[in-house]
Amino acid sequence: MRYQLYYWPGIQGRGEFVRLALEDAGASYEDVARKAGGMEKMTAMMDAGKRPPFAPPFLKAGKLVVAQVAEILFFLGPKLKLAPRLDADRLWLHQLQLTVTDFVKEIHDTHHPLGGELYYEQAKPEAKRFTQNFLKERAPKYLGYFETVLTGSGGPYLLGRKLAYIDLSVFQLIEGLRYAFPKAMKRIERDVPGLVRVHDAVAERPNIKKYLNSPRRIPFNESGIFRRYPELDA
Amino acid sequence: MRYQLYYWPGIQGRGEFVRLALEDAGASYEDVARKAGGMEKMTAMMDAGKRPPFAPPFLKAGKLVVAQVAEILFFLGPKLKLAPRLDADRLWLHQLQLTVTDFVKEIHDTHHPLGGELYYEQAKPEAKRFTQNFLKERAPKYLGYFETVLTGSGGPYLLGRKLAYIDLSVFQLIEGLRYAFPKAMKRIERDVPGLVRVHDAVAERPNIKKYLNSPRRIPFNESGIFRRYPELDA
Repeated sequence: MRYQLYYWPGIQGRGEFVRLALEDAGASYEDVARKAGGMEKMTAMMDAGKRPPFAPPFLKAGKLVVAQVAEILFFLGPKLKLAPRLDADRLWLHQLQLTVTDFVKEIHDTHHPLGGELYYEQAKPEAKRFTQNFLKERAPKYLGYFETVLTGSGGPYLLGRKLAYIDLSVFQLIEGLRYAFPKAMKRIERDVPGLVRVHDAVAERPNIKKYLNSPRRIPFNESGIFRRYPELDA
Repeated sequence: MRYQLYYWPGIQGRGEFVRLALEDAGASYEDVARKAGGMEKMTAMMDAGKRPPFAPPFLKAGKLVVAQVAEILFFLGPKLKLAPRLDADRLWLHQLQLTVTDFVKEIHDTHHPLGGELYYEQAKPEAKRFTQNFLKERAPKYLGYFETVLTGSGGPYLLGRKLAYIDLSVFQLIEGLRYAFPKAMKRIERDVPGLVRVHDAVAERPNIKKYLNSPRRIPFNESGIFRRYPELDA
């Protein structure tokens, strides 16, 4: 099966959580909107058909179109051998990924607390207030939760012995938060040593290593989810 | 099967989307935290075990614990006959429900744009700015999307001929937004007549009607997701 991934070109964004799974599994896929004429294809998909996706990313697999990062991963997981066999285990994995979704939204809101329609510069004091609380309370709470899950599983991965797509997402969270908040993360990481080990193990996986060194990996930038605005980094 | 629902007592909140499904189906369930000693049981569940939920609501079904509203409904849907048979249709339904999740988060942020840790009074001007954009852009965009889906399905429900749990959620969205923003909703509703018909049809379902008139339906209040602060209603 060759997959078509539809996501905004030029940023890692939410699409990156899907890319990491496809890349780790060595799956065959096309990153549609990054090719010539691809943006038009993407917007056409959103404006037509009986089951239009609300927003990118979405994935086309044959005739099926699946949207929402957590649902795309829930769908891909078994096919890419990045999910366990039992339904109950897959629901647990999905539940963890949905918590990543919530976390990613709050990460986005550090630079856009008053909505995505404004420029960062139009709500800078608000971004600062939001981010102070985010770095003090929210980020440690989310990461601490995943650390607890990891400890409970016996490790070395969040579900235990075998890597699943949630581990790739944890890699991306740590990588992105380090980019956006290098100072704060030095402090925060001290309390989540297990997650840092997951991050490091993922970075060493051959397919991920190849991907990160390829032009397919878009560099972090100030249009994505994780943005480096030094004034926000406590 | 008797289910145990765990959610904050005293508010409809996110738990209400699950309650509506259980009530419509006439399922047997216990609203644990609303009983004496229930809050202690709920917090104990979050602090213990190898697979703790990140936050309420969560549902216990035998030994299985499922969290996150959209996942709880994905799990319950087939059991309560509120989901279609085919996997592809269930993924589509889940995708719609995940968009409800995103919408609900933005509804919450109308009164808490800078994070849930502050009191409403501590970020009132920010709430006003956020809500202006929410009522002008975001709410019409989300509701317009669901209206498009409804039209595409042929109706009378969002998936077509048969009611599914997403329809109960649309009822709750309309009901809650009317409570929170009565003035703005008069204007916004003009563009989503199909959703209003779904709302009205759900309100007339015998089990829902009984539920809404029972003490089990907690009234809307200013601790929940949908809050009536007249200064926010444009």
